[in-house]
Amino acid sequence: MSNNVKPLKPWLPKPQNEVPVKQYKGYQPPWIIETPEKSYRSIFKWGHPSGAKAPRESLYKLLKKTFGMTDEDFQTPIFTGLEEVEVNSPITLTKEQIKKFEDAVGKDFVSQDPYTRLSVAYGKTMIDILRLRNKIVENVPDLVIYPDTTEHIEKIVEICKEDKIPIYVYAGGSSVTRGVEPMRKGSITLDLRKRFNKVIKFNETNQSITVQSGMMGPELERVLNNAPEEFGAKRRYTCGHFPQSFEYSAVGGWVVTRGAGQNSTYYGKIEHIVLGQEYITPVGKVVADSYPAKATGPDINQIMIGSEGTFGILTDVTLKIFRAQPENHYKFSFIFKDFESGVAAAREIMQAEFGFPSVFRLSDPEESNIMLQMYGIDHDTPVDKILRVLGYEENKRCIFLGFTDGEKKFCKNIHRQVKKICKKYGGFYLTGLVTEGWEHGRFADPYMRDNLQDFGVMIDTLECSVNWDNMLEVHQFVRKYCKSRPNTLCLTHLSHAYPQGANLYFIFITKMSDIDEFVDYHKGILDHIQASGAAMSHHHGIGKLFAPWLEGQIGSNQMDIFKALKKHFDPDNIMNPGGTLGLDLKESEKVFKRPKW
Amino acid sequence: MSNNVKPLKPWLPKPQNEVPVKQYKGYQPPWIIETPEKSYRSIFKWGHPSGAKAPRESLYKLLKKTFGMTDEDFQTPIFTGLEEVEVNSPITLTKEQIKKFEDAVGKDFVSQDPYTRLSVAYGKTMIDILRLRNKIVENVPDLVIYPDTTEHIEKIVEICKEDKIPIYVYAGGSSVTRGVEPMRKGSITLDLRKRFNKVIKFNETNQSITVQSGMMGPELERVLNNAPEEFGAKRRYTCGHFPQSFEYSAVGGWVVTRGAGQNSTYYGKIEHIVLGQEYITPVGKVVADSYPAKATGPDINQIMIGSEGTFGILTDVTLKIFRAQPENHYKFSFIFKDFESGVAAAREIMQAEFGFPSVFRLSDPEESNIMLQMYGIDHDTPVDKILRVLGYEENKRCIFLGFTDGEKKFCKNIHRQVKKICKKYGGFYLTGLVTEGWEHGRFADPYMRDNLQDFGVMIDTLECSVNWDNMLEVHQFVRKYCKSRPNTLCLTHLSHAYPQGANLYFIFITKMSDIDEFVDYHKGILDHIQASGAAMSHHHGIGKLFAPWLEGQIGSNQMDIFKALKKHFDPDNIMNPGGTLGLDLKESEKVFKRPKW
Repeated sequence: MSNNVKPLKPWLPKPQNEVPVKQYKGYQPPWIIETPEKSYRSIFKWGHPSGAKAPRESLYKLLKKTFGMTDEDFQTPIFTGLEEVEVNSPITLTKEQIKKFEDAVGKDFVSQDPYTRLSVAYGKTMIDILRLRNKIVENVPDLVIYPDTTEHIEKIVEICKEDKIPIYVYAGGSSVTRGVEPMRKGSITLDLRKRFNKVIKFNETNQSITVQSGMMGPELERVLNNAPEEFGAKRRYTCGHFPQSFEYSAVGGWVVTRGAGQNSTYYGKIEHIVLGQEYITPVGKVVADSYPAKATGPDINQIMIGSEGTFGILTDVTLKIFRAQPENHYKFSFIFKDFESGVAAAREIMQAEFGFPSVFRLSDPEESNIMLQMYGIDHDTPVDKILRVLGYEENKRCIFLGFTDGEKKFCKNIHRQVKKICKKYGGFYLTGLVTEGWEHGRFADPYMRDNLQDFGVMIDTLECSVNWDNMLEVHQFVRKYCKSRPNTLCLTHLSHAYPQGANLYFIFITKMSDIDEFVDYHKGILDHIQASGAAMSHHHGIGKLFAPWLEGQIGSNQMDIFKALKKHFDPDNIMNPGGTLGLDLKESEKVFKRPKW
Repeated sequence: MSNNVKPLKPWLPKPQNEVPVKQYKGYQPPWIIETPEKSYRSIFKWGHPSGAKAPRESLYKLLKKTFGMTDEDFQTPIFTGLEEVEVNSPITLTKEQIKKFEDAVGKDFVSQDPYTRLSVAYGKTMIDILRLRNKIVENVPDLVIYPDTTEHIEKIVEICKEDKIPIYVYAGGSSVTRGVEPMRKGSITLDLRKRFNKVIKFNETNQSITVQSGMMGPELERVLNNAPEEFGAKRRYTCGHFPQSFEYSAVGGWVVTRGAGQNSTYYGKIEHIVLGQEYITPVGKVVADSYPAKATGPDINQIMIGSEGTFGILTDVTLKIFRAQPENHYKFSFIFKDFESGVAAAREIMQAEFGFPSVFRLSDPEESNIMLQMYGIDHDTPVDKILRVLGYEENKRCIFLGFTDGEKKFCKNIHRQVKKICKKYGGFYLTGLVTEGWEHGRFADPYMRDNLQDFGVMIDTLECSVNWDNMLEVHQFVRKYCKSRPNTLCLTHLSHAYPQGANLYFIFITKMSDIDEFVDYHKGILDHIQASGAAMSHHHGIGKLFAPWLEGQIGSNQMDIFKALKKHFDPDNIMNPGGTLGLDLKESEKVFKRPKW
């Protein structure tokens, strides 16, 4: 069905595989930009098979300086993972069991191929990547199964329940918490990407869409943007959920981990966007209905969201949808004299009750430095000189950027009020240009991790949720630890804001290739986030990697609630077992770090 | 501490005991407006001991006409409940048990007085009122206990756990679901009004306040409105939660029932306002923390909200607070030609993304008729004539009213956009006058129930949550049943709106004094709400009265989740036992009504 609704102004950046890598003026390292053959690399690399992103020349120079490296260090890529994979993990499921799965979904949709098994076993945290670069294959499922329908998943869960076979689920594969890793031998992984990715229902009257959980971000956005052509709708829509992993993450993953998109300050986190859900659990189908609100006991949607596959398998999701109005993206960016005044302005914006901007990001001095360089405002350029004259000093100044979403006048008012408040706190208006620079790279930055890691430069991130009254302390306390490692960049920003607080996001970049060294450093950061009094995840979830900290985070009585639910849904512990959400950890494996100050 | 912040423009209506009852031109029934002595009436009557509200003369005339009554029928009040109470329910707790409670909280704070026991046993549904008018005392607690601190409540729960003594909780007492009724013999009721009503923490940086659960609505609003004087704050605040029961309901009741205030379209339901909570349960203290958002498993706040006292006793609540800006209440009211066009406008307003109005109320034709008369636009007045000439016919036309909250320009834009959309759907602007009429009576109408019931005219309400695509059908289907009873008014409005749907609220007024007749009628309405496909409560909760329908509403697998949580928190079923949330009902007691069309 077609329709005469005018086309949407394009606003999402181009996929990274369509963006050329820029030539440097000086020495340019041999960045690997070719599409890798089937290999460890084709599994661990981010995103599109032929996508790559080398750093800008200015960033390359900065990195060399920071890490005391020279062009010599960037001659030969190491641990590139370009070798063919070897999986020495024998299949322990019996032929009868395998046949049962084949009967359930069709023989063509059950794979025992080693590469396929490995390709769904890891996520994208640096621990995953370092293991694959080092050809360490710890956990793989026996089978990879491609369900097409909810009935398939019901049958699979039934078989697993009978024989106590552990079930893992894979879709986007962008987990940074070891969320998808099949820790138990003799397990299966459902790969939802291939077939479990369909629209079930589009409802324009209720402004909602129901999709299968394996629906990927771009496909969801495509059908919503093209709702007139796809569904005969009167308008074009958006889901409003754009995590950095948007292009390679699925709706189901967003929901079960309690994810957030970069526009969440306006659209809300995924738990605010979900209206209804269906799960197949070992005790049957759980249906959380899609009423706009109600008073019929505890909220079943909010019991299931964040369960990370430990209660059951999410099959259908009903999401709120919103009018797609990229023409109302009023962009803004400001520079503040210091982080304190930026945070004060950010708080006032969120508490002033004129509605919220959509993208909302305040970078700390270290991140602001890098951004200014990446977006072309390098040291001693004319703009930089003017800024310094005006009192916006390097290593103190902070960039705040964002844009609006919603109805035109609503957006215009937000833009005006944001300017007013920023001015009050000494912010200097940088127009929308910096925002455009950020938009350009918003989904592309993860590609750069692979290219830098080829030369031993590691990038990873951790994030946490913080109330305003603790914001500056958490920022200092966690950063202090991150920076205690010599030659380490720690880029921090405040984003995903609320009237009561915001997310603090730490990006750490350092020269490191050793897994154990990384694991220790990563643990140290988690320890410090927990000890700072922040909530240890705003939107990455817990998975198996953060699980040892969870009980310390939420408290034992609260952990017991999760365990009671787990026992109810999955008494045999076949749903994503092996540490997820800390539900089956030993006492000795847990970490408790209480605030120190 | 005092402060120079300018005083707040008064905007909440005066308490009803300060408003004189108007003299009629014609015959005026002997409305009981005197403060009753200690009696059944002083227990069941709404609100302030000396508050009363007789209908306007125009409404009195309409009621006579509707019910075929004459001035003769309004000569002598019946079943007034002015008699001294008699409680023949022997105390079965032992002296030792009573002493344990006295030791826990102090002898002066444990009462065995019969009037006191009865005064905390009932809520405000018509079933409660009719029982008290008929001196039917079915369930009273053995003791009424007045805790002061969380430690008191911990001790009380410990004693109850040891001896398996049922615990009930009373605060505002405005339940319309038999939520507070102590169904089990040998029970205790905690009355939180007297002492468990203090501010624990005010946090202006995070815009939050933490209070004990017995804090009443007006006191919460008083301290927030006077935050500069009370806490040395920089601004004045509001909680934004104003249910019709505002003056006689407590924070704890709002939370455990998942209530909504009349301004919820802007501020959200209570589950959107709550940041954190503490409960004392039989398995220990449960703390749901107050981060703005997070990704650390299922949402414990949303597991506990709506648990209606069946998991544990809510002690502390941390609530979001908002800037008090009554000067930005841009009022609007419109008249539409029919309900359909009003609903279409309401939906478009909620989906247009310019922010939401605060109060939002679309009355159906029958309610609009009554409102026009109550607010002075009677039949054949000049305004009425003009409206009819313009095509806004009686019994078809619908009133839509509301006002804004938030920052000034945000509010102005909403007001402008609402006008634009209403005009598009044929709405005629009635200025803000009708809204002012509504505001005047917003907390006072429940008083009228008592005065009318004295002459056998019954008023009660039921409400439900509906998606937009089912709105007109639910309205018709439920109303058809309500109106199948002869001489019955059924006033319906759509309020508490969302982009995905809204609440439908049914007020039924009929001549009826017989309890059984009422119970049958009430059941019939609940049956029809459930069969209509609506969620059977948007904000009244479930309690013991709606409990038989809950499993039919949410489904058995979902009910099993509640039961698993109940088993975890309260294995001995001592927390609000006897049907609450349908957790301890027999199969034969349940009602399942599935949508019929």
